[in-house]
Amino acid sequence: MTVTTPQGFRASGVTAGLKASGTPDVALVVNDGPSDVAAAVFTTNRCKANPVLWSEQVMAGRKARACVLNSGGANCYTGPQGFQATHASAELVASRLGIGAIDVVVCSTGLIGEQLETEKLNAGIEQAAETLSATGGAAAAEAIMTTDTRSKQAVREGEGWSIGGIAKGAGMLAPALATMLVVVTTDAEVDAETADRALREATRVTFDRLDSDGCMSTNDTVLLMCSGASGVTPGEREFTGRLTELCHDLAQQLLGDAEGAEHDIAIEVVNAATEDDAVEVGRAIARSNLFKCAVFGRDPNWGRILASAGTTRAAFDPAALDVAFNGVWVCRGGEPGESREKVDLTERAVTVTVDLKAGTESATIWTNDLTHAYVHENSAYST
Amino acid sequence: MTVTTPQGFRASGVTAGLKASGTPDVALVVNDGPSDVAAAVFTTNRCKANPVLWSEQVMAGRKARACVLNSGGANCYTGPQGFQATHASAELVASRLGIGAIDVVVCSTGLIGEQLETEKLNAGIEQAAETLSATGGAAAAEAIMTTDTRSKQAVREGEGWSIGGIAKGAGMLAPALATMLVVVTTDAEVDAETADRALREATRVTFDRLDSDGCMSTNDTVLLMCSGASGVTPGEREFTGRLTELCHDLAQQLLGDAEGAEHDIAIEVVNAATEDDAVEVGRAIARSNLFKCAVFGRDPNWGRILASAGTTRAAFDPAALDVAFNGVWVCRGGEPGESREKVDLTERAVTVTVDLKAGTESATIWTNDLTHAYVHENSAYST
Repeated sequence: MTVTTPQGFRASGVTAGLKASGTPDVALVVNDGPSDVAAAVFTTNRCKANPVLWSEQVMAGRKARACVLNSGGANCYTGPQGFQATHASAELVASRLGIGAIDVVVCSTGLIGEQLETEKLNAGIEQAAETLSATGGAAAAEAIMTTDTRSKQAVREGEGWSIGGIAKGAGMLAPALATMLVVVTTDAEVDAETADRALREATRVTFDRLDSDGCMSTNDTVLLMCSGASGVTPGEREFTGRLTELCHDLAQQLLGDAEGAEHDIAIEVVNAATEDDAVEVGRAIARSNLFKCAVFGRDPNWGRILASAGTTRAAFDPAALDVAFNGVWVCRGGEPGESREKVDLTERAVTVTVDLKAGTESATIWTNDLTHAYVHENSAYST
Repeated sequence: MTVTTPQGFRASGVTAGLKASGTPDVALVVNDGPSDVAAAVFTTNRCKANPVLWSEQVMAGRKARACVLNSGGANCYTGPQGFQATHASAELVASRLGIGAIDVVVCSTGLIGEQLETEKLNAGIEQAAETLSATGGAAAAEAIMTTDTRSKQAVREGEGWSIGGIAKGAGMLAPALATMLVVVTTDAEVDAETADRALREATRVTFDRLDSDGCMSTNDTVLLMCSGASGVTPGEREFTGRLTELCHDLAQQLLGDAEGAEHDIAIEVVNAATEDDAVEVGRAIARSNLFKCAVFGRDPNWGRILASAGTTRAAFDPAALDVAFNGVWVCRGGEPGESREKVDLTERAVTVTVDLKAGTESATIWTNDLTHAYVHENSAYST
């Protein structure tokens, strides 16, 4: 079910008191090997949090023995003092595990621009190190939650090997990763180059196509740790396939728990000249507040979809476009098509299809509607 | 006060029955000359409405004698039948005024993807032509309203000449113009090249820097008609200056009436390497739903500002940035600065200042907060 399902991993989740809610807030995931191969992708935001700056250095070596994560504070825009707090976390984990600090990835999530309470954090890390167990994945998944209403875990099985993951993220969910921390573990034997290629390919078509609210985070991290404990070396294609399935599963769990959302919307852009065109059009639609409000109101307002498509550079003839809501083609050739009345948007799942008639490529972007609850959650609380 | 303040113009506004509300919905503004110089800027959206496609042809001649505008339907994505409706409107206006159809600009606003009710529209145009008067500007301003709660008008006076304008727009308010129709009149003697340059310069720093909800419309039009009736030829600098003031005034009226908004937010980006950088950073912040929700909640959440800035390509060092809310520097050098507690966001007007420390250029983007009322208005009604 989780990161401790593959062989060779231990994990824990404890309450350090960083979150006012008193819920668990420090997690530790450890790779006991024999292999320490790892790969990671980070936010493309230029304003990177201190743990991201640190973890990029760790990943230069393409290996990691442990990942320590905290909720209750993003440790972003906290200057040298914040970087020092991250570094000290890694040192503390390393000393308790008998490894080097440079093998410890650090992730943080929470409010930007506040220093972490390092005494509490360090006490939490000590406790997390003491309570590590081969069944601790669920506790770790819980300790990284912020505004999430439920923890996110997934597993996929290969032939004699497995892959597991935990994720958090509910707001600031946007392209090039979201305020989203993901730890994926596998007991497959994978070399560093394969791990890196597989992770980039998997995230490219899963997490990177999630655009819940258009807001790109400063802390996003997806880490893959490979223990090799199964002794099995899957083919790259098989490994990438399972990893992509796992990432898709976790991404859909994030989508389904997005702040205040009442609809999960798949925007399928088909018959594009290039995959990039399809992604650009899908993303433009996913970022239209008017479109997102319309779906909340169960209104198949396709004019707002075409107005968004029209802001892109993608190849298409505006007079040729078709648009469907849940398979009802409300716009055909740039003119009113089937009746809007036929569209039923009461279910949580909504599929919008935009046919660009410009080629054979396609892509799907996943987003949510814009609701009163989203506004409430993001105006009433500092997160 | 309005488009009929300058000499040489007549206008009217009537109720044709295009709007279910039964409020006025057809406006006509006529330039009686002696000059017929005109300039216009249109939406940069590739999905342009039929009236925009028509009016672009009119403006190829750099002159216009009249502008007919309707609310109650955007006439966008309505195919050849929709274009024919636009063309017929221009023909009808032309026949009633004894001019050519190619001198008649057409503007429409309302729901995308529905055919206009042309019988009602044409009857309205007949009535509008019959009721033209030298005091009809206010009636015209009222007839172009959609979700606007009040009509928008402004005037500026030169030495012996004047300039007046009407505007509408409350939603789909975003860069490169908003669902925004603006008619500006002047009795100054202006040649076509000057009129064009002046209008582009004025809109570049006013309407184009309004980004209320990030949604670019398909129908945006700003039209400038010059009658020359004052006999005065102002210097280009003076003319551009007055025109820019007028456009700024109208843009601020649009901002102040944006759908559901409780705050008008000026995002000043200073010390940028280039003006384009300043605009890019300002626009990225203006489009952050998380930032906009925070302002609604009166929360000076500067982390969301920096997270947005980090998505741009503008030149700056993330560790050097300063951010102020209403003059309180809550972030200094990329670290927490003055206390957030000092910031008071109860007033409607909010100024955010971002110091990029990368040069000497600056720009201001105007936006609104994201509120429950915005979600309500845009989910409960098809507009």
